[in-house]
Amino acid sequence: MTEIKELSSKHILGIKDLNANDLKLIFETAKNFKEVINRPIKKVPSLRDVTIANLFFENSTRTRISFELAEKRLSADVVNFSAGSSSVKKGETLLDTVNNILSMKVDMVVMRHPAPGACAFLAKNIDANIVNAGDGTHEHPTQALLDAYSMMEIIPDLAGKNILIVGDIKHSRVALSNIFCLKKLGANVKVCGPPTLIPKFITSLGVSVEYDIRKALEWADIANVLRIQLERQDIKFIPSLREYAQYFGINKQLLDSLNKDITIMHPGPINRGVEISSDVADSDQSIILQQVENGVAVRMAVLYLLAAKRA
Amino acid sequence: MTEIKELSSKHILGIKDLNANDLKLIFETAKNFKEVINRPIKKVPSLRDVTIANLFFENSTRTRISFELAEKRLSADVVNFSAGSSSVKKGETLLDTVNNILSMKVDMVVMRHPAPGACAFLAKNIDANIVNAGDGTHEHPTQALLDAYSMMEIIPDLAGKNILIVGDIKHSRVALSNIFCLKKLGANVKVCGPPTLIPKFITSLGVSVEYDIRKALEWADIANVLRIQLERQDIKFIPSLREYAQYFGINKQLLDSLNKDITIMHPGPINRGVEISSDVADSDQSIILQQVENGVAVRMAVLYLLAAKRA
Amino acid sequence: MTEIKELSSKHILGIKDLNANDLKLIFETAKNFKEVINRPIKKVPSLRDVTIANLFFENSTRTRISFELAEKRLSADVVNFSAGSSSVKKGETLLDTVNNILSMKVDMVVMRHPAPGACAFLAKNIDANIVNAGDGTHEHPTQALLDAYSMMEIIPDLAGKNILIVGDIKHSRVALSNIFCLKKLGANVKVCGPPTLIPKFITSLGVSVEYDIRKALEWADIANVLRIQLERQDIKFIPSLREYAQYFGINKQLLDSLNKDITIMHPGPINRGVEISSDVADSDQSIILQQVENGVAVRMAVLYLLAAKRA
Repeated sequence: MTEIKELSSKHILGIKDLNANDLKLIFETAKNFKEVINRPIKKVPSLRDVTIANLFFENSTRTRISFELAEKRLSADVVNFSAGSSSVKKGETLLDTVNNILSMKVDMVVMRHPAPGACAFLAKNIDANIVNAGDGTHEHPTQALLDAYSMMEIIPDLAGKNILIVGDIKHSRVALSNIFCLKKLGANVKVCGPPTLIPKFITSLGVSVEYDIRKALEWADIANVLRIQLERQDIKFIPSLREYAQYFGINKQLLDSLNKDITIMHPGPINRGVEISSDVADSDQSIILQQVENGVAVRMAVLYLLAAKRA
Repeated sequence: MTEIKELSSKHILGIKDLNANDLKLIFETAKNFKEVINRPIKKVPSLRDVTIANLFFENSTRTRISFELAEKRLSADVVNFSAGSSSVKKGETLLDTVNNILSMKVDMVVMRHPAPGACAFLAKNIDANIVNAGDGTHEHPTQALLDAYSMMEIIPDLAGKNILIVGDIKHSRVALSNIFCLKKLGANVKVCGPPTLIPKFITSLGVSVEYDIRKALEWADIANVLRIQLERQDIKFIPSLREYAQYFGINKQLLDSLNKDITIMHPGPINRGVEISSDVADSDQSIILQQVENGVAVRMAVLYLLAAKRA
Repeated sequence: MTEIKELSSKHILGIKDLNANDLKLIFETAKNFKEVINRPIKKVPSLRDVTIANLFFENSTRTRISFELAEKRLSADVVNFSAGSSSVKKGETLLDTVNNILSMKVDMVVMRHPAPGACAFLAKNIDANIVNAGDGTHEHPTQALLDAYSMMEIIPDLAGKNILIVGDIKHSRVALSNIFCLKKLGANVKVCGPPTLIPKFITSLGVSVEYDIRKALEWADIANVLRIQLERQDIKFIPSLREYAQYFGINKQLLDSLNKDITIMHPGPINRGVEISSDVADSDQSIILQQVENGVAVRMAVLYLLAAKRA
């Protein structure tokens, strides 16, 4: 079998669109870039003379900085745009905003937007490479890629392994992208959380549901604990945050009582004492900071591979 | 006649201050830079070791990003400052703010400010090159330069040609800078809009006024359609936005009924369905995205020529 | 005596922690960098491949831009983060935010934070070099270093000289850092201001207090006039701003009546007509803009010396 050394698409819109070769290529490339960013000289000239616009129509710290660092370490030229200081307020359409930025000879667009499908809409209508950095409750593909990459540093082949996702599955693009990615890698995926935060369609994705956190953890090799999005006004918690922590919060006592090894992940930002306790977040079982480090490497890989599709 | 290869001033405060040689020099230089930004390698080292501060005391997306890209493609070092996160709120004067930034060895200042004359005031009091990126309702010279440059790509010599400006002439620095620029290039200029949005002094600039949009378009070779500034609280529309669109909005049906070629421009951001319909904005008659592309080239030219005045 | 050519700490948290050799080293290095930034080519490659994050959890213009320019002139890679567009709002702890940014392979952190001790807390818990750019009412060490450096351009040896600090001593991290720095350099330090704005513990730092501004100025070789922080809601002025200006404001008439040379400093931003009049701020006695220029050189020195501690 001949190896295919390029992505199947010129965009990264969602994990749903990536095939097995795409995933393999991204993970291999990320591994190389992880070596690069751990050298004293963390920069490569790969994207010199490529201009990338980071368009964030929603607040973000870590994702924006992670992309920005990835871009700068590839020697790209970077312009940042966030909705607060923008003509979005002036009534312009998304397509006009992006078309204008592209007319300034921008080569790639990294976009976060509150509307599901915003990136796919752009990809259909414009000529640049698009990287989805989160579109509403739809997908957050680079998060899923860095999560899978981090899992594979612990368990190199995820096929047949048990991966648990805990939390607000209903409103989480991270959950959805993780599920698509893990299923493509052959993992068994289970979700756990309050019934009000688990959507009914989830089982149609080949995912099992468990409402008892202890049973779920006993099953899992790795647990990816999502954050409870305190800032989402539209979520009515039944039970309350305090009860959530009591019934679904991951703490050291619970993990120790399992008598098994389990790796704990969290995409951040953490609400300590809500979905995860400090003694777990800061323990050796947690690979939360490795996820962040891998995020830069994975994003470098994605941007590098997309740039190759431009030629 | 010997060619003069430098600008007459060390600042770009308004079109009013530029002479014929300045305009010629800027357009010729912009043409060279337009070639540069359409090459695979879009960068030149011309402004290496020049530090430019972008001081935006008013919101802006496209103008700020256009300047930032122009600066980076000239290899300048760039610092951005916007009023939201600034000591302007702390009661400091504009002169103190700018003097402080200059004391940090900043060479050029690109400034947008709500007060008409703010850039001219700075130019009198400080030692750096100043580029006016819009000062209140006064001037927006680089917009007028990119508009004229874009017109000259369609009609190389504008002398004796008919250029129409449609919309809110009263509150528009774009209109004023366009009028100054087009008159210097020998064009015939007409304005069209509701009587409440056309100031009485406009005819003293050698501009004619037409309140009937059909008659105005029949006269014009090119129409530059301004945006209705929805965010300006102080404009009372008589008639309403809907009536504005009905009486002055440019749509395909209207243009087709003219039985003539006409080029449509718009400085953006567009309010689709208000001053311009989507079928016009996205048609072949429209050069809106070319304007945006030319904006980067024209701004590169202006910065490059000003830098030469520093030596 | 052998010269020590490195700092005693890998952080700059406060002047309190610096020894005499640290101060000497910083001032000597700053002198070299001041020459650099006054050359046509203002950049050196010293911090190439060092990534610096500027984390500003409080508004700032001049300090942020000063650090950013210092970093860029050392050829560092820079990422900016300000609290407005951040996950700080999402309930994450400071330590988590900074640990995440560091996991992205950031080498140095420049931080401004409203909590006194925030930088010291970070330094205990993370592995990067930390530069305190102001932590609540605690310290602002680089401001004190640039103030002392600027004084020493006027009076090379400050030992035994009389330095006056005027204004709101109680709420000022600039006052506190200045006092620590000047005492270490052997200067006599006096503070002057309304009794409500001078804390009782100040005399325990070896500082004298004078409530009469004329007497204080008659004593001083240099007066560092602090700004009245109009934006601090929690300060009840007794007397009012107008009375403050009358009793403690520094104006030309007052200075001329002293019949002596005195150098006037101000850390900015200036409230003209409150703590200092325009005729003083803009006079030859004032070295306010030299302070700003020296700020870039001193910050380059600090960052350069800290980078050397990483090897």
